[in-house]
Amino acid sequence: MKLTFLQRLVVPAEAKIVMLILDGLGGLPQEPGGLTELETAHTPNLDALAAQSTLGLTIPVGTGITPGSGPGHLAIFGYDPIEFEIGRGVLEALGVDFDLGPGDIAARGNFCTVDADGILTDRRAGRLPTEASRELAALLRTIRMEGVEFFIEPVKEHRFAWVMRGPGLADGLTETDPQRTGVPPLPVRALNPASEKAAGIVNRFIEQAGRLLAGKQPANSILLRGFAGFPVFPTYAELFGLRAAAIAIHGMYRGVARLAGMQILDVGGETLEDEFTSLEKHWNSFDFFYLHIKKTDTAGEEGDFLRKVRAIEEVDALIPCVMALDPDVVIVGGDHSSPAVLKSHSWHPVPTLLYSKVTRPDGILTFGERACARGSLGVLPAKDILPLALANARRLAKYGA
Amino acid sequence: MKLTFLQRLVVPAEAKIVMLILDGLGGLPQEPGGLTELETAHTPNLDALAAQSTLGLTIPVGTGITPGSGPGHLAIFGYDPIEFEIGRGVLEALGVDFDLGPGDIAARGNFCTVDADGILTDRRAGRLPTEASRELAALLRTIRMEGVEFFIEPVKEHRFAWVMRGPGLADGLTETDPQRTGVPPLPVRALNPASEKAAGIVNRFIEQAGRLLAGKQPANSILLRGFAGFPVFPTYAELFGLRAAAIAIHGMYRGVARLAGMQILDVGGETLEDEFTSLEKHWNSFDFFYLHIKKTDTAGEEGDFLRKVRAIEEVDALIPCVMALDPDVVIVGGDHSSPAVLKSHSWHPVPTLLYSKVTRPDGILTFGERACARGSLGVLPAKDILPLALANARRLAKYGA
Repeated sequence: MKLTFLQRLVVPAEAKIVMLILDGLGGLPQEPGGLTELETAHTPNLDALAAQSTLGLTIPVGTGITPGSGPGHLAIFGYDPIEFEIGRGVLEALGVDFDLGPGDIAARGNFCTVDADGILTDRRAGRLPTEASRELAALLRTIRMEGVEFFIEPVKEHRFAWVMRGPGLADGLTETDPQRTGVPPLPVRALNPASEKAAGIVNRFIEQAGRLLAGKQPANSILLRGFAGFPVFPTYAELFGLRAAAIAIHGMYRGVARLAGMQILDVGGETLEDEFTSLEKHWNSFDFFYLHIKKTDTAGEEGDFLRKVRAIEEVDALIPCVMALDPDVVIVGGDHSSPAVLKSHSWHPVPTLLYSKVTRPDGILTFGERACARGSLGVLPAKDILPLALANARRLAKYGA
Repeated sequence: MKLTFLQRLVVPAEAKIVMLILDGLGGLPQEPGGLTELETAHTPNLDALAAQSTLGLTIPVGTGITPGSGPGHLAIFGYDPIEFEIGRGVLEALGVDFDLGPGDIAARGNFCTVDADGILTDRRAGRLPTEASRELAALLRTIRMEGVEFFIEPVKEHRFAWVMRGPGLADGLTETDPQRTGVPPLPVRALNPASEKAAGIVNRFIEQAGRLLAGKQPANSILLRGFAGFPVFPTYAELFGLRAAAIAIHGMYRGVARLAGMQILDVGGETLEDEFTSLEKHWNSFDFFYLHIKKTDTAGEEGDFLRKVRAIEEVDALIPCVMALDPDVVIVGGDHSSPAVLKSHSWHPVPTLLYSKVTRPDGILTFGERACARGSLGVLPAKDILPLALANARRLAKYGA
């Protein structure tokens, strides 16, 4: 179902929707016959909510596909993540909260090491400390070219976000990272005539960067890859007439929400409580709230099963704050699975509940992977959750007579 | 799966299929923790059939989409309701049993009120009584134009079905209803060159109607919208070699069945018993029977939970009549949900059972929404039910070697 098909059916309504995303929510048992992180967690509030909800398992991108955070979020926001792509450079810039705009070209940068002959000897410059990286980024910022602005933002260790801004720039650029050592970095080539100007600028930038970094071993050169322009997606306001807000601590999630046209709320702190307080504070000003919880994913990616269990329990304790606001529709789900035993994102479907005053409850009394597998949403594409939320908020008219 | 793909696989068979559609079958509980209409109903015969059947929940158009009767029926008949659209004018004409044919252009008509300056003051002419509307329709029938015939059939209150028939007419016409008062009705414009002739005729018709209705306040003018030509769909005979028959009391359902090429049987009465008697009577002449039950939807739309329960129980009592005919395949389902608590069609998936002598029974002993959620058909598009029926009737050959 296309977003434009949904758009035809949209009608105004007052109902409020909360989409609570526990990053990397889905998990795996630690041992045969065991329970997942969510099944292990003591979640009386989520269980009570599940009893009034319809349950299912969402597939973010496609069966068997492990999503990155960008595609995982786009899907749960209702955008087909294969149709709507976000370039890596853009995600890197969004991740450091860079205010990327249409026309900007972003790339993912690495400091690297080259020898006297210009041969790449370390693609990550010995993973130099973030602090050192910060100083070198300041050095790169001194590069000036007429008609174009550059932005360099350190990310972590050898990584930085790189952005160029100016008229007539287009993406469609090859990468400089040869993906192996023992060869020189590659020059950037334009993949189409519209990108010729941008290619020339990038190559001159890299040359000047090399001169500035000469002698700064191990970080005496740079690699740039994942060149991408800021994608312009149809927004929630345009598509659905929704006043949508995002509550998220980390730049990347705020950035992806911004692509959907959500207003990014100032959380005023970094704790779960701060996020839920922000929801209360802005309750009257928006129709749709996306609230992002990072720590479930962090614990999963670090392989800390019990820390992920505790993170879920902390969220559970805050569910009454959401319900006290009397929302019309609540979705609790995730952008992908991050099982602690895998220490990474995974392809496993994500447990999801949809509470509303007009949903058909499954009569299942717990929230967990296997409980959701028995739910009447079945196993469904994550992008179908948004149409369901809109339907339950009575924001979609009947199709046909 | 495309109908043309199915068509390649069709093989002849003797097996008989019964598709029993309880309109608006799916429901919702009246109170938290309660049962739906179908779960409340005492249905020993459907329960016994369920025990020998495969169960599932069907989604007529798409997740979250509330279907009108047209798209809901097309889906359960196997036609993708987004690909195969039926215009509103066509549904209005089918609804009054008008014998619409290829080349006809149909519209939904309203009597309306305009002031002395031609400004619209009431889009529905005070919802004038159907009887008054009937007299005015007779007046409109006196309008004559060379080379074109007009048909005007009262529907209810201010509404009428309007059809023009003649050579060289095409749809692709804008509507005259401005959707608000305080402005004059809009002239019809052709959306493409092929529709120019039709646009001119409609505008002249409206002008003449205005003269005939002058002084007939509140119904002193008309609005026409939803112009649409009779859609030509591939029929069951063409696609599957099926001799298909429809048993339905109301015009719209007969009309949609006619689009699929079903032969419309004369029911000879308006009761459920009349419909089931018609099935028995024509049993030997057809391979496929669509039997439509309206009263479940009527009760749901009127918010009468118990009446919907009773309607389901009445159908249950007639199930033995169907089974006595020894059908090879029986489908019991709906075209959409109409929960009494919502008093309207809704997006909720529809409980469905598929009985056949070669299906794999789920071992679930009741027929209801939550029972079907556990069924092995899962949550599936309604349009996939027909291929399943054909397979169970052994009417589809193996695909590939």
